[in-house]
Formats: sequence, structure tokens, C-alpha cells
Amino acid sequence: MKVEIVSVGTELALGQVVNTNTAYLADQLTQLDLAVTYQTTIADNKEVMVSTIQQALNRAQLVFICGGLGPTDDDITMATVASALGTKLQLDQQHWKWIQDKFKQRQITMEPENIQQAEYLEGGQPLANPVGLALGCWYQSDSQVVVVLPGPPAEFKAMVKESLLPMLKKQYSTARQITSRTLNFLGRPESLLMDEIKVATEGMDNITITSYVQPTSIQVRLTVRDLPIKVAQQLINQAQKKILRVEGPYYFGIGADLRLVDVVVAKLKKLHWKLTAAESLTGGLFQSTICSVPGASNIFDGGFVTYAAKAKEELLTIPANTIDKYGVVSAEVAKSMAQQACQQMGATVGISFTGVAGPDSLEGHPAGTVWLGLAIKGHRTLAKELHLAPYIGRQAIRQLSVQYGLQFLLTEMVK
Amino acid sequence: MKVEIVSVGTELALGQVVNTNTAYLADQLTQLDLAVTYQTTIADNKEVMVSTIQQALNRAQLVFICGGLGPTDDDITMATVASALGTKLQLDQQHWKWIQDKFKQRQITMEPENIQQAEYLEGGQPLANPVGLALGCWYQSDSQVVVVLPGPPAEFKAMVKESLLPMLKKQYSTARQITSRTLNFLGRPESLLMDEIKVATEGMDNITITSYVQPTSIQVRLTVRDLPIKVAQQLINQAQKKILRVEGPYYFGIGADLRLVDVVVAKLKKLHWKLTAAESLTGGLFQSTICSVPGASNIFDGGFVTYAAKAKEELLTIPANTIDKYGVVSAEVAKSMAQQACQQMGATVGISFTGVAGPDSLEGHPAGTVWLGLAIKGHRTLAKELHLAPYIGRQAIRQLSVQYGLQFLLTEMVK
Repeated sequence: MKVEIVSVGTELALGQVVNTNTAYLADQLTQLDLAVTYQTTIADNKEVMVSTIQQALNRAQLVFICGGLGPTDDDITMATVASALGTKLQLDQQHWKWIQDKFKQRQITMEPENIQQAEYLEGGQPLANPVGLALGCWYQSDSQVVVVLPGPPAEFKAMVKESLLPMLKKQYSTARQITSRTLNFLGRPESLLMDEIKVATEGMDNITITSYVQPTSIQVRLTVRDLPIKVAQQLINQAQKKILRVEGPYYFGIGADLRLVDVVVAKLKKLHWKLTAAESLTGGLFQSTICSVPGASNIFDGGFVTYAAKAKEELLTIPANTIDKYGVVSAEVAKSMAQQACQQMGATVGISFTGVAGPDSLEGHPAGTVWLGLAIKGHRTLAKELHLAPYIGRQAIRQLSVQYGLQFLLTEMVK
Repeated sequence: MKVEIVSVGTELALGQVVNTNTAYLADQLTQLDLAVTYQTTIADNKEVMVSTIQQALNRAQLVFICGGLGPTDDDITMATVASALGTKLQLDQQHWKWIQDKFKQRQITMEPENIQQAEYLEGGQPLANPVGLALGCWYQSDSQVVVVLPGPPAEFKAMVKESLLPMLKKQYSTARQITSRTLNFLGRPESLLMDEIKVATEGMDNITITSYVQPTSIQVRLTVRDLPIKVAQQLINQAQKKILRVEGPYYFGIGADLRLVDVVVAKLKKLHWKLTAAESLTGGLFQSTICSVPGASNIFDGGFVTYAAKAKEELLTIPANTIDKYGVVSAEVAKSMAQQACQQMGATVGISFTGVAGPDSLEGHPAGTVWLGLAIKGHRTLAKELHLAPYIGRQAIRQLSVQYGLQFLLTEMVK
């Protein structure tokens, strides 16, 4: 089945506003196995609207048309869809009375055009708007379903969730059973990871494996269609096992919304460990990332930002001659920073970041050269060197350093 | 002239990722008076790609095709565009050598498919990618211009800005004269700001004023069309003066890419001041934001993350009875934190953040209650309370606290 989303709005076409509605709806549809084929965004222009809507209706069996249901002259979506479908507009008397009452209550003068927010397609069903004035519409013919939705994201999402999804589920419940699982990885280039996964899962049928590059990780989704959940889960378990045998060191957990920091904080909590940090090039980004997790106070009391050599000496009492001898971009300084931070904060584990964010080189090291230090109380202190690509830029080097720091910490915690 | 943007990516079509590239490009094009007519988003599906690209080429004189330039089998955009245009792929030998060198340097095995990232359309010009591997392409025929761009937002934006915009400006410079200026504001709701600006600039003709809500600021763009630059600049100066007379306290500078932190770091540099910070709810985010500016080491040596009361006492020697008496969410603790940090680091100015990021309340204060402290050496110490809306969530509360901290600092620095 072909599914299309048409978004109408000059502010979208001209790039004044990012279109978040389409991704929201498309993701909801994907979960119902209604994969979107086309998304089109156009300005509030009658001629373009007519041809685009006509084209979508000719092409797809399920068409969503979003935006342009406001109370101004520019808002012509419902009327345009009506004429494209060869139907008329119909007034929802009850809703029109409700709109008039709302204006009276709020003592705001109503515009005559507000009546169009109570109109829907004749032969269709109005869709309730839980947080706004304009009705949506569900219009069903023998060959297709056409849905009209409002543009403002809050209204759009509320209508999709509360009015539309129940109807879609009812209509398309005969659709296929889909079972999926998302695995998260860090530290392996996408192409290499997917090639290795392809080899590892060779010969497995009925399972689709796709990858999604996130800003600081790679997500791999395993999907099984048309099989009972139990069988599908077994198949996914089997594939996961094969994949982790090869990619285990880069894996950090299950879930499309999972962040590495959530895994790390949960693990620290479980072990009753306290974490601290001493950050140079990351300048507080690691600790800020830890604090982005609600309840971080269980595992984190505080730490140090030691950007200059002076701060490393004064706050962490790292001897000036250690810095002179090895340079700040060194295993020795990284280890000292982690140890000192750990000791001063009375923590179980201290992590440190020192290196070159760029754009310029430092001590002869190119941007992207980073040393991580890790001191676990009662164990030996470790250091790890990263060589990140200088061209990814200062911010990405800092962000990736934080993610690799989390991975380093997690790996040593589970040992 | 008709302008179209085609975005290719299964993750976009299925709604796994919000398409921010299109809005960015469309906005840049609008500023060149190249209004986008159609935006289409499709999955990595050869058949759909071929028909969509063909349709766009038939319809528009300027076509942008974005995404699908990665190193996997799914990345077929360049090849598909080539066949739609009736041309072939050409290898950029120099770029291919550069890619191979990059992999060698980073000691990562390269995949054979990486070669396609050095290919562009025969008869076109490669577009340099300042932050990634894949080349883009500018292809010009008698009747139209076709541009191929990479999908990852960082690469996309860098290529648009550094490689594409100069070419577009050159090509379409015969278009209308457009003069514009972007003013940046923080701390005023958009609708109120724009209503006040409307009143302030009443009676001014030939100038368009539009607003763009950014995550942590509001941008107001003043645009004048079809007037000589000098006249337009005068008109914009006049409007800016009228606006700043009313909105001055919320204004922080000119430029679409300007960040408040850039203004603050530049000002500190100019004054030869050293900054430090003690952060509780922001957990290092302020210092990390400072360190995001290249050259931050001129004005920042380091500072403290004091998340728990214990860390405030131990690292900043704040008396336990001060915390007991006033609570951590208080002017007194904020001031002490700023003073102690400033003194310990030997800085000119110390800033502090203490408050409730949420989701839960703390000491009877709802999420969004934040105290900022500001200690300037040789001056009295100040404190300021923020009441951010709890519903914006933990991350937004932390981010906005940092922005308001920067604003507080800037205001006191220029006094």
C-alpha cells in the first residue's frame, strides 16, 4: 500500500519552521506497518496545492494532508481537498456552536472566517481536535482513505494520537504482525559494522536488518514481519546473539530511545558507585551529560573542569613537572587527573579527559587526539587514546570524547 | 523560477529522524529570493527515487537532491541523479586519495564502497565537504541547475554554507537586491516581542520584519527588497534603533549565526577578564558552553561542578550552616558559590548556578526555580532568580539557565 503525507504551509516551504509533524506521523504509521512512500511540503498556493493533492490521490491509497486549517483567507486546505475529491464542505453545527461559545467565554472578537474551522468533507467524518479549534477529517472511499489534519504541532500531535490512531488501528488492524528491536552501538564505522553484521547473520531468513546513524551512535534495527510474536522474538534473539558475538565491544543496549549515558548511570546506581570527573578539552560536557539523567545525584556529587594547565596543578595538585615532562596530551596527565579527582571527591571512580578539541594543534598533536584516564578505587588506573578525525570539528570531537569516555567507563565497570 | 528540494533517506521517510536540512536550505534560499516551491522526501528506493528526481527535473529550474551519499549499497543518490540527467559518474582522483589517507591515518580498514564518496556527476563540479568524506556536486545545463548534497546535518550545513552559497550567490546575483539583518533576543516571549516591535516600527514602509524561534533565543530579521544597499541599510538602522529603544534589555547582537556565548567570550577577552564558574543544576553545561568557543582558554582556566551539597561544602568551602539555613536554592548559596569559585581560581568574575532542574521539586521549590550568582572581583556580589516553566522539561531548564547566566554576565560586564 502506498502512503503519502502532504504538508501545506508557506512557513514550512520557506524554511522558517522545521517540519516536525511529518516525522511524528510517519513514525506512528511505521509502527502500524504503514510505511510512508512520499512526503511533500508546499506553500499555501492554490494552484500548487490542487496539483499536489491530485497527484497524491492518484498515487497513494492512504493520503494525509496537513496544515492550512486556520481561520484566514490563506487557509484553503479543506476546500481544496473537497474539490479534488469531487465533494463539498459540510458544517458541523455542534462544533460551530462550541467555537462561538469559546470566543464568547474568552471575550475575543471572532472573525467570520472562523466558521471554516467547523467545516469538514461531506461524506467524511470529522476528527476531534483536543487542543484547538479546527476540525480534522477522515474521508473514505472504495479505493482510498484521505485524512485532513491541522498544522500547529500541538494540535496535530493531539489529533493524531487521540482521534486518528484509533481509527487507523481499526482500519488497518488486519495488517501484518511486526516485531522489532533496536540495538545500539558506538565506535565502529557504519559501513564496517553493517558489513560484519551481514556476514554474521548470513543465512538467516525472515529478518530485516537496517542501520540508522545517530549523532553519537549507530542504531541497528532487527525487524521480523508476518510471524507470531514468540517465533519473531526467538529469531531476533538468535540474530542478536550472532551480532553481539562479533560486535559485542561496541554494543551498549536495546531501545530506540536509549542513550549510552542512561546505561552508565543505571549501572553505577546498581553498583552503588560514585563517579567524578576532571575535564580539560570537554570543559564540563561529560559531567553535564551525566547530570542530564534524572536522579544523577545518586551517583554524582561533583567534579572539576581543569581547562588550563594552571587549573590542573592547582585544583588537582598535578605536579608541574609531570605536565612539563609528558605534556597535557598524555597518558600520564590523564591518569593523574582521574586519580586526583577520584581521591579528592572520595569517589569510587574518576574519569578524565585531556586532549585537543581544535581547530589548532597542541603540543604537536593534531585536533582529535584525546587521552581518557580512568581511576577505579582499589584498582590500577587506566588510560586510553582516541584519534578522532580533525575535520569533524571542535564540537563533535568534544561530544564524541564524552561518548567514548562513557563507553570506556562502562567496559571497565562490567569487567 | 521554480525551486525544489528532494530529500532521500529511509530514516526520514519513516519518521525516525526529523528533517532539519530542508528548513535550513529553504531559509538560505529565501534570503536569496529563491523561494522553494516543492519539498519532497522519499525513502532509499531506486524506483521511487528515479521517478521523483525525474519529476523534479521536469518541473523546476533549480533542484537540490539531498542525502544518500554514504558508503553503503543503499547510497545510490549520485548514481541515480547521473542516470536521470543522462550523464555518468566521474572519480575525483585527488579526493579519493585524500579519503584513503584519512583511513590510513586513523588506522581504520576502508570498505571498497568508500570510493563512491569521491564520485560526482560528469560535466558537473564537485562541492567540497568541509566536515565529512562525501563530495557534493553542482551540475549546470542550459535550462537548469542541479545540486547534490550529503544527508548528515553537520555535513549538509557546512557544505551549503561554505561550498554552495557562494556559487548560488554568483549564479543568481541578477535577482532582486535583498538587504537583511538579523537581531538576536533572549528573555521575551515571541508573540509579545513581535507585538511590541510592530508598534515600535509602525508607519515604516518597505521593510519586512519576521521572527524565528530558536531553541534558546528569538531571531528577528529585518528585510528590505529592491532598494539600493545604502538606502536599505539606512532603513534597517532606523528600524533597529526603534526596536532597541523598546527591546534593548533583551537584545544581544547581530547575525543569524551569532550565539550569546560568542558575544560573552569576546567581551571577556576584550576586557582581559578571567571567568570561572560553580555549577549545580547545570552540572558543567555552562563551562562546556564557554569551552565551545575556540580560544576560550584566553578567558577561562577552569571551575567547579558542585552538584551535591557535600561538593559545595568541600570544594567551595561553603559553610554547612549556610546551606542548612537558606537551602541550596537560595540567593545566599548562589552568591557564596560565585565568590568562592572566583577567589579559588583567582578569576576576575565567578558565576554560579543552583536550582531545580526537575522533574521533582526540591526544598519546596518547583522545577524551574534557579538562582544565579555573580561575583566580580572588587565589586559586590549579585544574585538573580529565574522562574522557568516546569513543563519545558529538565534539559530545557538547564539550557535556558545557562543562557540567562550568560545574559546576566553580559549585562553586568557592560555596566
